[in-house]
Amino acid sequence: GFYFHYWALFDGHAGSGAAVLASKRLHLHICEQLRDLVDILQDPSPPPICLPHDTRGSPPKLRGPQDNGEVPNDAVPRFHLEKAVSHESLVIGAIENAFKLMDDQIERERASQHLPGGCCALAAIYLMGKFYVANAGDSRAIIIRNGEIIPMSREFTPETERQRLQFLALWLSHCLIPQAFRRPELLGKEFTHLEFPRRIQPKELGKKMLYRDQSMSGWAYKKIEEDDLKFPLIYGEGKKARVMATIGVTRGLGDHDLKVFSSNIHIKPFLSCSPEVRVYDLTQYEHCPDDVLVLGTDGLWDVTNDQEVAGVVMEVLTSYEPNDPCRYTMVAQELVVRSRGVLKERGWRLANDKLGSGDDISVFVIPL
Amino acid sequence: GFYFHYWALFDGHAGSGAAVLASKRLHLHICEQLRDLVDILQDPSPPPICLPHDTRGSPPKLRGPQDNGEVPNDAVPRFHLEKAVSHESLVIGAIENAFKLMDDQIERERASQHLPGGCCALAAIYLMGKFYVANAGDSRAIIIRNGEIIPMSREFTPETERQRLQFLALWLSHCLIPQAFRRPELLGKEFTHLEFPRRIQPKELGKKMLYRDQSMSGWAYKKIEEDDLKFPLIYGEGKKARVMATIGVTRGLGDHDLKVFSSNIHIKPFLSCSPEVRVYDLTQYEHCPDDVLVLGTDGLWDVTNDQEVAGVVMEVLTSYEPNDPCRYTMVAQELVVRSRGVLKERGWRLANDKLGSGDDISVFVIPL
Repeated sequence: GFYFHYWALFDGHAGSGAAVLASKRLHLHICEQLRDLVDILQDPSPPPICLPHDTRGSPPKLRGPQDNGEVPNDAVPRFHLEKAVSHESLVIGAIENAFKLMDDQIERERASQHLPGGCCALAAIYLMGKFYVANAGDSRAIIIRNGEIIPMSREFTPETERQRLQFLALWLSHCLIPQAFRRPELLGKEFTHLEFPRRIQPKELGKKMLYRDQSMSGWAYKKIEEDDLKFPLIYGEGKKARVMATIGVTRGLGDHDLKVFSSNIHIKPFLSCSPEVRVYDLTQYEHCPDDVLVLGTDGLWDVTNDQEVAGVVMEVLTSYEPNDPCRYTMVAQELVVRSRGVLKERGWRLANDKLGSGDDISVFVIPL
Repeated sequence: GFYFHYWALFDGHAGSGAAVLASKRLHLHICEQLRDLVDILQDPSPPPICLPHDTRGSPPKLRGPQDNGEVPNDAVPRFHLEKAVSHESLVIGAIENAFKLMDDQIERERASQHLPGGCCALAAIYLMGKFYVANAGDSRAIIIRNGEIIPMSREFTPETERQRLQFLALWLSHCLIPQAFRRPELLGKEFTHLEFPRRIQPKELGKKMLYRDQSMSGWAYKKIEEDDLKFPLIYGEGKKARVMATIGVTRGLGDHDLKVFSSNIHIKPFLSCSPEVRVYDLTQYEHCPDDVLVLGTDGLWDVTNDQEVAGVVMEVLTSYEPNDPCRYTMVAQELVVRSRGVLKERGWRLANDKLGSGDDISVFVIPL
């Protein structure tokens, strides 16, 4: 009688293998992680810090001196420094570990199952009155409640994760650790961890150029040296930003074999499979039938912003009866159709004549 | 005729040397960094991406084909990917680099000048209509405008920087890089990068305990192994949290010689001298004489929260004429006095009978 609801989007790149496997397995990993917590999550008292050797298959009631084998002993000092851990943070930890195990499974099965490429993953889990939205990649989730937009994720791209990537590159290949421990081969001799506002030309050697390193959010000038002529770790802006000229998202599942074109430099050490999990407590608010959670891949958000999505949601929902179950599917369909646009002489065009999305577009509209 | 205003707090630990030197030098480093930007910051057009070899001592007008030696050439391809860099981000970069240079100077002079210890640094720079608030440590700045509280900094402590520290520890000493490149000596054999809600007892080996690693914000259970009995990288809660049982702040200047007690493990690689810089644009709002920026060391904020500080600010300011220049000093004095409390039989007590701050307390109240 203990269940969760689950929706997820997997936006593959460089092949569909990783995305397809993740779509068939991620929820099983989440289920597996939550299974161990069933009794703890249903018990209103704080989760126990320590459990006996193996809880699987033990009687439902885990805690109390009789059940966990621990006899209260006044001689044992009390722990003064014991952190309070919430039920919510256990669910977050379970989802985080499920993403890791999913990534491990793709790594293990990629040869035998032919799983090229990788995928962004955005999952929404409804459990015990709360939505847990886990995002690793550049998909996006928003809640629209009474016309208000509540962001439920942020995108992980070379631009948003610049400092994490630069920090990693510098530690591994450059000057913060002693010579004997450096691993220049990880970044390759072809790349520099510094960011410049544009590529530098060899004739500009000796001039001063704006740069940012891993510790800076602002910019400063530096004299251009030979090393600065290398290709930058992160290059390009917006949708065109890439890590080592190869990939435009910095979190997701798979990509274990991804290398920089015609080189032996692996990209995976720079990618992360850890999702950011945000929580929305449904019990804190009164919701009406027009309040929804929207999940969409970047194909949607590249051409339709949060406000426009909210507008379409309201427009379409009001044209259906509040108890018509298909109204949410119709919103999702309308969002896809409008973001693709109409084929005109000069390509696919949106209602405002801008270019439609050439990317794949997947959308969930989930009533709250 | 180009000047900035500057206020800063340096809260020393393990000796006053680093704090005193920083109080005498940080503004000179900031001045030096800004000096190179004088002409660029006064020119309303976007900062040039690239400058000629040396701008120091060159004529005031730096840009334009005559001055920078670059001749416009239609044969040179235009740069399609050129990032726009704002004047504001140049000032932020200048302040960030000034903190780095200050830290370098403490490292160089620590032997000859006898500069033990380190310090938190919180600096407010007013330049061309904007306040730049740079924070490295656990001091805090808030703006109080029309009774509203606007945070201008966040604290950097073992708890707020847990994942950065765990990530670093893991990369350097554990399993993410090949055996040959690991540096277990950096973390020492005595520490584990994992976080547990409390210390584990040897008799708990084999049981399951809650933990978090560098990639998790939630908690999960793991079986306790020998390695988990080591002392945790981060231990304790709130004001008692410490990195390797040694230091309670994770950003600041100095601490180059700081080691874990009776060991050869250096703490400095885990500390950062990079400030977070927040910007407040004074020209965006109408300010009244009661609108202020408050800078305070942790001695203030440990016992007096943002709302209480705002209350004291309003209470004291209304008891003076709006044009009385000493009213701001009186607020600062009142904040210190109230946070220290009064010596009673059971120690220094606040008005609400809670313990007063036993720490040093420094406060600036700056009219906007």
